[in-house]
Amino acid sequence: MPQLRRDPIGGRWVVIAPERADRPSAFLRRTAEPDEGVCPFCPGNEEMTPPEVLARREGGAWTLRVVPNRYPALRTDIQMSRSGHGLFDSMAGVGAHEVVIETSDHRATLASLPAARIEGVLRAWQERMEDLARDVRLQSMIVFKNHGAPAGATLHHAHSQLIALPFVPETLAAELGAAKRHFERKERCLFCDVLEQELAEKERVVLENDSMVALSPWAARSPFELSILPRRHRSSFESANGQELPALADALRTILRKIDVALENPAYNLYLHTMPLREPPNDFYHWHLELKPVLSQQAGFEWATGCYVNPTAPEEAAAFLRQTEVFP
Amino acid sequence: MPQLRRDPIGGRWVVIAPERADRPSAFLRRTAEPDEGVCPFCPGNEEMTPPEVLARREGGAWTLRVVPNRYPALRTDIQMSRSGHGLFDSMAGVGAHEVVIETSDHRATLASLPAARIEGVLRAWQERMEDLARDVRLQSMIVFKNHGAPAGATLHHAHSQLIALPFVPETLAAELGAAKRHFERKERCLFCDVLEQELAEKERVVLENDSMVALSPWAARSPFELSILPRRHRSSFESANGQELPALADALRTILRKIDVALENPAYNLYLHTMPLREPPNDFYHWHLELKPVLSQQAGFEWATGCYVNPTAPEEAAAFLRQTEVFP
Repeated sequence: MPQLRRDPIGGRWVVIAPERADRPSAFLRRTAEPDEGVCPFCPGNEEMTPPEVLARREGGAWTLRVVPNRYPALRTDIQMSRSGHGLFDSMAGVGAHEVVIETSDHRATLASLPAARIEGVLRAWQERMEDLARDVRLQSMIVFKNHGAPAGATLHHAHSQLIALPFVPETLAAELGAAKRHFERKERCLFCDVLEQELAEKERVVLENDSMVALSPWAARSPFELSILPRRHRSSFESANGQELPALADALRTILRKIDVALENPAYNLYLHTMPLREPPNDFYHWHLELKPVLSQQAGFEWATGCYVNPTAPEEAAAFLRQTEVFP
Repeated sequence: MPQLRRDPIGGRWVVIAPERADRPSAFLRRTAEPDEGVCPFCPGNEEMTPPEVLARREGGAWTLRVVPNRYPALRTDIQMSRSGHGLFDSMAGVGAHEVVIETSDHRATLASLPAARIEGVLRAWQERMEDLARDVRLQSMIVFKNHGAPAGATLHHAHSQLIALPFVPETLAAELGAAKRHFERKERCLFCDVLEQELAEKERVVLENDSMVALSPWAARSPFELSILPRRHRSSFESANGQELPALADALRTILRKIDVALENPAYNLYLHTMPLREPPNDFYHWHLELKPVLSQQAGFEWATGCYVNPTAPEEAAAFLRQTEVFP
């Protein structure tokens, strides 16, 4: 049974999930080559995953499926409970962990899909968020994608993951705190202010379209770290509309193709930051995607400090990606 | 010239260090096999490193050397300056980055050295901290060790690193804040309280000696994460005395040998948390070492949340290591 434990010093929650040790690749050193054996995400192997909670079909065949994770970090089928044990806090590992199988094609990558299919993936994220938000035990939702073994992917077949948590995690809480403090002082959104400065200076902007801006942030932690932000201020991804989702799909597709060309198909982590679940719209927070190609490593200095050493200035990375040509 | 940049949202400092892109292995994907060619840390190749700032010699041959890093993340030979640029803060990349070559033997590991040699490494850390503390621009000091390529080591020859920073980094600042808040409420040291509970419960303790306790923390972020803490309350590693340093060397040696046996010579990150430089002794903070074998990976979920999923309960890891026998 997964258990959440809070570190009495760092204050952060950790998921102790013994079930995940049963995965074929629970430890890095044991990681098998991807795709040894049968792929559980391929058509014909649907019985290898738990029953789907969402699917898109075209002409009888599915094009996208969402299934509960077979090795969940957290589970919805247990009772919420909290307990203290001397200095140590814990709570039951209540949460949802789902997998979005982004395509039926085993060899496709998200970057290789037509923009309309990428939009379908984004819509599936939205739809699952709206459904899972009905469970009032769940406080926040993280959507993420690990592409390639160096990024932590254990299966090659293109997929993203949703984890709904019974708390607001540290990194998101820090962003919310900074955004609130900025709003208190300025009565403006911090992210809107950053966007305005970045669009005026241009040097860290990689691309823009009607609704979206992709840039490498001022204090990028690693080479070619990127963010995609909507121009329009909205606190939650759930509110992204019929103009924004196609624009996001298009920006994401171009960015992923650019890094594939520029960095020779790197592994990457992609994730969504959005308001905690069921919060009404507000003026201070601004949803966005963050993308980190895996080109450097978390080592002792980073673990010790939370500070990163980045050998590539974001201005250089952005200039390089602006020049990188991709086929439409 | 390295530059420090502060992220306007996360608040964290990042080192933008273009010089480090010149290293043979700046990007993970380009990482060469360790020890291709000549080892700059071996006897006879002393001219391949900058001149030493500290050395131990026995019978004419050196047994330990400390040298400035040839590809420094930060540099002491530049002027301190701070600037603001709209929303974006920066300062000059002032700092020290040194390498402790722990042995002259290319094939030795820290774990394989006699306890007295490990104590010599710890004493070299202390000595360099005391010396670098005289530069009043430097606010804190991080000692760390990356062992093995999966842990970020680019050279095989055993070494640790010291980085002195012109600020107090996020992770250390968070520990200091939590320790201060605990002291304000309880008038006791948080780490002393944790030690007392751990020593009473025993299940997460791996080993104890006269002066040191090694344990796997309650909310371990990854399998077999360990801490080594002194029993005696002291805020700074610099104050570790002639009884504690041999006891720490002995505990560290046994722990490293245990993980080598139990986990088949894993890569690991080891680092020291101690008070910022030149701070007088206090009652709230307690120096310690943290050790993370590299068995799992930082992936999208961890980047998105700062929350970790650990498939191995620390009680299990500690029980396993207690039973692991090593030769003295």
